[in-house]
Amino acid sequence: MAKKEIKHVNLKEIKNPEFLKDMSYKELDVLSEDIRQYLIKIISKTGGHLSSNLGVVETVISLCKNFDFTKDKIIFDVGHQSYTYKLLTGRDLSTLRQKGGIGGFQKMKESPYDHFEAGHSSTSISAAAGLAFARDLKGEKYEIIAFIGDSSLQNGLAFEGLNELAQSGHKVIIVLNDNDMSISKPVGGLSTMFRNFSTSFIYRKTKGFIKLILRGRFGHWLLVKFTRVKNWFKRKLVNMTIFDNLGYSVIGPIDGHYIRQVDHALTRAKKLNKSVVIHVKTIKGKGYEFAENDIEGDWHGVSKFDVASGEIATKEAMVSWSSQYAIILKNEMAMNDKIVTIVPATGHGSALDSLFKIFPDRIVDVGIAEEHAFTFAGGLAVSGLHPVISIYSTFLQRSYDELSHDLARMNLNATILIDRSGLVGNDGETHQGIYDEAFLYTIPNVTIAMASRSNEALSLMKESFCNHGVFAIRYPREFFSTKGETVKKIPYGSWKIELEGKDTAVVSTGPLTLKLKEEITKAKKNVSLYNAIYLRPMDEAKIEQLLNYKRIVIYDPYSTKEGFVNALENRLFELGYTGQVIVKAIPTKFIRQATIEEQREDYKLQVKDIIDLL
Amino acid sequence: MAKKEIKHVNLKEIKNPEFLKDMSYKELDVLSEDIRQYLIKIISKTGGHLSSNLGVVETVISLCKNFDFTKDKIIFDVGHQSYTYKLLTGRDLSTLRQKGGIGGFQKMKESPYDHFEAGHSSTSISAAAGLAFARDLKGEKYEIIAFIGDSSLQNGLAFEGLNELAQSGHKVIIVLNDNDMSISKPVGGLSTMFRNFSTSFIYRKTKGFIKLILRGRFGHWLLVKFTRVKNWFKRKLVNMTIFDNLGYSVIGPIDGHYIRQVDHALTRAKKLNKSVVIHVKTIKGKGYEFAENDIEGDWHGVSKFDVASGEIATKEAMVSWSSQYAIILKNEMAMNDKIVTIVPATGHGSALDSLFKIFPDRIVDVGIAEEHAFTFAGGLAVSGLHPVISIYSTFLQRSYDELSHDLARMNLNATILIDRSGLVGNDGETHQGIYDEAFLYTIPNVTIAMASRSNEALSLMKESFCNHGVFAIRYPREFFSTKGETVKKIPYGSWKIELEGKDTAVVSTGPLTLKLKEEITKAKKNVSLYNAIYLRPMDEAKIEQLLNYKRIVIYDPYSTKEGFVNALENRLFELGYTGQVIVKAIPTKFIRQATIEEQREDYKLQVKDIIDLL
Repeated sequence: MAKKEIKHVNLKEIKNPEFLKDMSYKELDVLSEDIRQYLIKIISKTGGHLSSNLGVVETVISLCKNFDFTKDKIIFDVGHQSYTYKLLTGRDLSTLRQKGGIGGFQKMKESPYDHFEAGHSSTSISAAAGLAFARDLKGEKYEIIAFIGDSSLQNGLAFEGLNELAQSGHKVIIVLNDNDMSISKPVGGLSTMFRNFSTSFIYRKTKGFIKLILRGRFGHWLLVKFTRVKNWFKRKLVNMTIFDNLGYSVIGPIDGHYIRQVDHALTRAKKLNKSVVIHVKTIKGKGYEFAENDIEGDWHGVSKFDVASGEIATKEAMVSWSSQYAIILKNEMAMNDKIVTIVPATGHGSALDSLFKIFPDRIVDVGIAEEHAFTFAGGLAVSGLHPVISIYSTFLQRSYDELSHDLARMNLNATILIDRSGLVGNDGETHQGIYDEAFLYTIPNVTIAMASRSNEALSLMKESFCNHGVFAIRYPREFFSTKGETVKKIPYGSWKIELEGKDTAVVSTGPLTLKLKEEITKAKKNVSLYNAIYLRPMDEAKIEQLLNYKRIVIYDPYSTKEGFVNALENRLFELGYTGQVIVKAIPTKFIRQATIEEQREDYKLQVKDIIDLL
Repeated sequence: MAKKEIKHVNLKEIKNPEFLKDMSYKELDVLSEDIRQYLIKIISKTGGHLSSNLGVVETVISLCKNFDFTKDKIIFDVGHQSYTYKLLTGRDLSTLRQKGGIGGFQKMKESPYDHFEAGHSSTSISAAAGLAFARDLKGEKYEIIAFIGDSSLQNGLAFEGLNELAQSGHKVIIVLNDNDMSISKPVGGLSTMFRNFSTSFIYRKTKGFIKLILRGRFGHWLLVKFTRVKNWFKRKLVNMTIFDNLGYSVIGPIDGHYIRQVDHALTRAKKLNKSVVIHVKTIKGKGYEFAENDIEGDWHGVSKFDVASGEIATKEAMVSWSSQYAIILKNEMAMNDKIVTIVPATGHGSALDSLFKIFPDRIVDVGIAEEHAFTFAGGLAVSGLHPVISIYSTFLQRSYDELSHDLARMNLNATILIDRSGLVGNDGETHQGIYDEAFLYTIPNVTIAMASRSNEALSLMKESFCNHGVFAIRYPREFFSTKGETVKKIPYGSWKIELEGKDTAVVSTGPLTLKLKEEITKAKKNVSLYNAIYLRPMDEAKIEQLLNYKRIVIYDPYSTKEGFVNALENRLFELGYTGQVIVKAIPTKFIRQATIEEQREDYKLQVKDIIDLL
């Protein structure tokens, strides 16, 4: 049997992608399957981005076969789909996303095959435009590829890049990986366009039929209407896309799992002397049934899982802060029909799935469009509705201007649920949620708060609906044990005294405050513990009390010190405090991948480090 | 003669736009001309946005005639083209842009006719989407209009809004004011598309010819090729725009100076029950020869000017910091061919026009695309070039994430010239440059500096090319007297002692330091004056010296205190300083329009206020 003759590549021995050039298409198909199984095995152990990586195996093989990425350059948008590329360029994936190991995104220090770094969506076209500009200015010759998913195109940055590159005259090959899926479902007019595109793809395959139509009476009628631009039918027939409009050549759509077809498209693209878009259709999660059938986004970024059963590991009897806030939000939305929730493609990650079912009219997934999310919220808020924007801390960076101008400047009421605030662990530098507190502090009219227990979370959420302008609530990417708690209202701007002692006061914020309380009690330390639930405005009455202590420890393990910590320290200074102040906050650095615990250990930010101080 | 019968409207007596409904087209044309002359007269005295306002007079008249903006809502993108609207809705423009007067942008507190506020580009579609969502959720009935210029569409936020609105099912009428001009020239593929659109407009007017072609042999050939998407000819023939692709109905292009035609388009748009784009062609600066012929952008935002001669008032014998940095940059680019300058549509404002002529290959106007500017810079920087990004402080807010992730996180070398840092005067809240220092402080690896004299500016610029990563240089929207100065190198991170005295040390930054030095000397105050040229990193050796003073005044009249001021205060605290610290910085507020001097007076930030303290 022919099958037996196909030799398997030992994936662990790959040094570089040179070997691909000598392989037959049959062998490449076997390789694809082997890589896929290997990725499933690895990711089931390390956690990571599964679906997107399974979807691009063949396309990446073809890219590595057709280009020499020691000279040519490729930028994977976001970079979470670069695992096959990492493997083919000789990297050992067994340490994926671990401390000191291979990163979950592209990393220049990791390999000379990586030419840029990302983590946030939609940067690849702009960055590739920069590479292409530099290449041409220096008179060098090589190809530059931006590999980008359809959902990343929803983001304004990708559009800005596309728009500028179109006119620049510097050639970039844009490989559009169209899997009809954002992190979960696609949104927006662009996704309709791509779906139309697929439809017309079918039409293209039935050329004879089309010809017949167009040559007949109907065709003539169509021609007469030729200059009218608005009808649905033409959109179906004429494959004009945004890329055509902007002036790009377009190749495709092609089947991204058919290496020969991708090879062919890449060969054509290489021959062109202008920027070109190759439209590649792929199936996200291909080859792993659970991922392939996933429409919620469960398999986008996963924890460890069992390959056979598809069971994803979760922490038993623990609730994530995301779920907790989702439950609170659900209850509030049920009681208050002015609340409209906005989420930029992270609804699943922030546990909001059920809200889409319960309140279909009052929750909007705007896609990967963080800027729009906030300006849209401004429109809702001036109309008397109360927008709640659920967003990851790291992505909030994209909305700095809109949060400031389109909400805070008009002092409009809005709640911002900042998920994954603080250290995020294995996603590393590009996803750290440690900056939002600091940058929100630079914007007037913004309340910033962080709960340590679920009853505080509820109280904060309720307070955020009481005309305080922009109200930001931070919570970490962590789990906590729920205990029966009595709901108490926390007055706006006030802190809570958890422990009363003498000489030393610890001011702490967020969930670790509870663990700290436990440990202080256990260690029988006679110190006071203040729970700074409101990071801004600060509790002036409690600050007055602090002045009586000989020593103050400010513990914010969820942020760099440029936010609350600096503000409190300065306030104490202004009030003439002359005792000792010890600051324990995250250093203003880009912090590498490791577990959250490891990261805290590295910077001496664990609860035991505070106990040691006391 | 018929002309004599046309009655002129007394523009100062307009209370609301109701009267427009009773006017004939002839009368409306006269009114348009009267408004135009009035605007020229007013703006020549107050300064303000001239060209954009002259371009939209008739379109705005038609809008006010066809809608009732006590119920219907309109959002002017940016809002600087809303003067005619302000006039027609009963506002007295004679106080335009003055302290306590009518704003240069839309203002909800100013009039019930204003439904949102802007100042930064490209927010109108997102905000209108929010208004429309709210209207439909509440079951209300009225029209919502987003009035947006072609150049604003280049920005990613506009695209995000367009993309999401297309699918939302909530109706917005988008009036696209296409004047083929950004602040100066249009850039990007989108502008080509609009130019193609105009071309095809001609084709459309020669329908017979088109029909002939399409019915003939050539037409058949074209049909056979119908499914091919890439050819130029079809782009010309088929008016598919990005709006069509995304699913919008499109009306136009129409002549925006022809009120009857605009009326007609608006009537059609009202009848539709889905979102629609009305493509209106207008002439920027129409009716004022100098503005109409302006391709540089001189007449976009102007100071006071002489109407007859077109002479714009400038401060004699004074040089703006923009010009000064432009000259320095020009010299550096001449000596160092690795420097590539990037500017997001503000080249004219930042006095970079000549650089486009001298270094056409090494300066890029990316249009109103601040995010792209920084990610593109990242691409240049990894390729070994040195990007210099020239940007206004207020617009830098749009690039927070890209500056952080696509430059600072990779510790790439780039210079950021932050023009209009500090208070900006009459543009008011939306254009204040008082936040960048603070938000840059929250991003790791960023150097922040501000020169007080031109030789320091030169030294900073040169230093920025010496591998310090991201190097931000702030400078204000002010003029200064140049004096012959010897160029001295300022070591990286160091401050300069301007005056040595005892007991009190003043730490000051930026150009006012020189005036302060003069006044301290004049008043014979025996105090020390430190010039904090580097705001980050700070000069640790000089901070050590500060500890010896009884009193330290920190004077940063160009920023809120969350940046350098807090950092210095904390450092002093950490080092055990127990003397008095007085902070003079801009409050963390949104600061209203007035002259810069008035704004400084309001917050006691003038040099004399510091002298009074000493």
